[in-house]
Amino acid sequence: MEQRTLIGDLHDHLGKEVTVCGWVDVRRDHGKLIFLDIRDRTGKVQSVALPNNSGVVETASTLRSEWVVTVSARVNKRPEKMVNVLEKNGDIELELLSITVLNQAQEIPFEKEADVNIDTRFDYRPFTLRSQRDHDIFTVQATIVRAYRESLTRQGFLDFQAPALVGGDAEGGAAVFKVGYYYDQTAYLATSPQLYKQIMVGAFERAFTIAKIFRAEKSATTRHLAELTQMDFEMGFIKDEFDVMAALETTVRDSVSAVVAQHQDVFTRMGVPEPLLGETFPILTLKEALDIVGGSGDDMDPEHERAICEWSKKEKGSDFVFITKFPTKARAFYTMSDSATGGLSRGFDLLFRGLEINSGAQRIHSYDELVQRITERGLDPEKFSFYLQAFKYGIPPHGGCSTGLERFTARMLNLGNVKEASVFPRDMNRIDTLLRSEE
Amino acid sequence: MEQRTLIGDLHDHLGKEVTVCGWVDVRRDHGKLIFLDIRDRTGKVQSVALPNNSGVVETASTLRSEWVVTVSARVNKRPEKMVNVLEKNGDIELELLSITVLNQAQEIPFEKEADVNIDTRFDYRPFTLRSQRDHDIFTVQATIVRAYRESLTRQGFLDFQAPALVGGDAEGGAAVFKVGYYYDQTAYLATSPQLYKQIMVGAFERAFTIAKIFRAEKSATTRHLAELTQMDFEMGFIKDEFDVMAALETTVRDSVSAVVAQHQDVFTRMGVPEPLLGETFPILTLKEALDIVGGSGDDMDPEHERAICEWSKKEKGSDFVFITKFPTKARAFYTMSDSATGGLSRGFDLLFRGLEINSGAQRIHSYDELVQRITERGLDPEKFSFYLQAFKYGIPPHGGCSTGLERFTARMLNLGNVKEASVFPRDMNRIDTLLRSEE
Repeated sequence: MEQRTLIGDLHDHLGKEVTVCGWVDVRRDHGKLIFLDIRDRTGKVQSVALPNNSGVVETASTLRSEWVVTVSARVNKRPEKMVNVLEKNGDIELELLSITVLNQAQEIPFEKEADVNIDTRFDYRPFTLRSQRDHDIFTVQATIVRAYRESLTRQGFLDFQAPALVGGDAEGGAAVFKVGYYYDQTAYLATSPQLYKQIMVGAFERAFTIAKIFRAEKSATTRHLAELTQMDFEMGFIKDEFDVMAALETTVRDSVSAVVAQHQDVFTRMGVPEPLLGETFPILTLKEALDIVGGSGDDMDPEHERAICEWSKKEKGSDFVFITKFPTKARAFYTMSDSATGGLSRGFDLLFRGLEINSGAQRIHSYDELVQRITERGLDPEKFSFYLQAFKYGIPPHGGCSTGLERFTARMLNLGNVKEASVFPRDMNRIDTLLRSEE
Repeated sequence: MEQRTLIGDLHDHLGKEVTVCGWVDVRRDHGKLIFLDIRDRTGKVQSVALPNNSGVVETASTLRSEWVVTVSARVNKRPEKMVNVLEKNGDIELELLSITVLNQAQEIPFEKEADVNIDTRFDYRPFTLRSQRDHDIFTVQATIVRAYRESLTRQGFLDFQAPALVGGDAEGGAAVFKVGYYYDQTAYLATSPQLYKQIMVGAFERAFTIAKIFRAEKSATTRHLAELTQMDFEMGFIKDEFDVMAALETTVRDSVSAVVAQHQDVFTRMGVPEPLLGETFPILTLKEALDIVGGSGDDMDPEHERAICEWSKKEKGSDFVFITKFPTKARAFYTMSDSATGGLSRGFDLLFRGLEINSGAQRIHSYDELVQRITERGLDPEKFSFYLQAFKYGIPPHGGCSTGLERFTARMLNLGNVKEASVFPRDMNRIDTLLRSEE
């Protein structure tokens, strides 16, 4: 094979002969001319089979969408009146000199850019992932993950591999999947890397993990997945939860800034505004937030979350808003209470465009207090003996938080359903294919 | 809390007063002087409580290993004859002005640097992770992961989140863990992200994932874990498997170079030589390799792997060696045959210091050929219908490979057991704590 030229680099080869590899995105027959849009990982380019090259015309006329080809071609400027300034390669065209078919494709089930319903998209995932929309979603997602990780690394956090298999349903709340382990024993799929992050603080002070977690809730809303990617960090030697919120704000700002810097084209194509970062993320107590949106109680419901984000955007110029001072009883057992407020915790949520994307807190660091809390919650400290070693052998005041990658991605691009931000979504009814008909 | 100074930055504050937070690594009482080694995430420093400061002496005398403290102190140069040139902070000392205890620790079970047996290390993981040895292992591991990812990103690969939950035991070989899914259905834990990587090639041409995989083999050797981290990539538009090997060699060289550049201190402390990269990794066919080591048959056993790596090191100056041309029947169903060699495949292994750390191949890209191979292997093409869409709708010639992170880390640092390179290892008998006594 001749040295391949990527479609994104064609402008460097104007007037020259190149070898291009890719998929036939679409074929259009215009009288004696056959046009092929060819696509590779770096973009698309219009190509033309001219009538004077009968071999090329013959092959071109057999090609259909998604066939895989290698072509040799000359990179020509398009005539002035044919230039499309809105497209990256809208000013050039490949004049096809030869075409080799590397692989054929069967007839496609529908146009890959067609607006089919979400279940059809997932049924045909290996095909629909080729759409511009899915390219945009998962390219942005990769940038989020990369920027998140780089920001935490810069802040002195160590990346570690949190386990997916755990020995017990430790937090005793979330619905959990059971695994048949060796010798007829039962293991569980982790619902959070929480306990391991805290152990890591005891050893490394600052640690993060981008880990799969699994939630067996019987819930089929647009907010739920059975398998999720969580971006978790935990840090020692904090004064209080506001130190964690500051580290999180830095990380989220870095991630949003990376997406904005690298993917202007995606925001334009999808018609989504860039996230507003404001000067600083507003911080409201739960009570303040509920007062603003006219709610009450111990938590925010989805309507309240949407309303307070509208308020934050309008009043503070920020698509992000922190909510603090949730009741301790509504938070996980390891959450520290705020002794000054009686019954309120040092936990917080971060909302982004109407959805909670992160939850965090300062944690209890006293061994005795933690054992007492575990007992009060009706859990068995004996089952936490491994975890409790971190506290027995000296752990600093610490806290941390967890961002849901799919939720963050979905709100970044205003996707209606968090499942769209999972490349291979799993839910009650689907693992790749539908497991059963919906009732 | 005063602005904290990290122990790694103390040299910038010579003669000044600082606030340092950390753990008491060890306390030594020398007559009227009490010495504390204080440790934070950036290093250790010797500190001294002088007899003229009775408050500090009183507190210092109560401290034990792993207590968590904040101290205010003056950064002094050590007297010439007390300088320890082998230690990073061997020329300075903190003169303690005040000590605040942030958290106490119970008596430690043994010295954390003690050479206890591996099961004891894992029983006390939250404690033993604080040892220098484990710091070194997991700091190096984080660098490997980061460099591997950055190298693949530079080479145009897209990072994606491969699923851990799968609908079937697709490859029909490796022992697999079963998961109780919704509505009494059975799901499985992925033994490889292979099929998803190939789907990603159809959409993104080049993709990689650093994913958990799960192996239920009843094997308790020093080479096996039940939960592993695999660094997988897959690439389209290749000529043959040698293109994959070239991309892998680049990635492995980048990873080794990053570790060598950043962790000289670790190689020194652990007494391990830097990996030899040679000019290029030698490539041997299975037959050539077996001839050299005096073996025969369709595969290499562990003795052969060690012997051929000794040969590669001695003859080629490389701790790495590729082995190619394994029999097709010994490789996974999606592996392409090398039509020129009759019965041999386009698969390869990469060995590093006596152990296979990577396995890869060119894959079948023809839909019809793939369906035929699946059928020949006694598998049911219907169960692969989701995956097969990638081939139905046009996939380029492609290949890829998979590196075991724990194996790569273990060989980088000459660890005797791959479990030592897993921060929270899972095997037949252990998930954090021992599940049962060994028979």
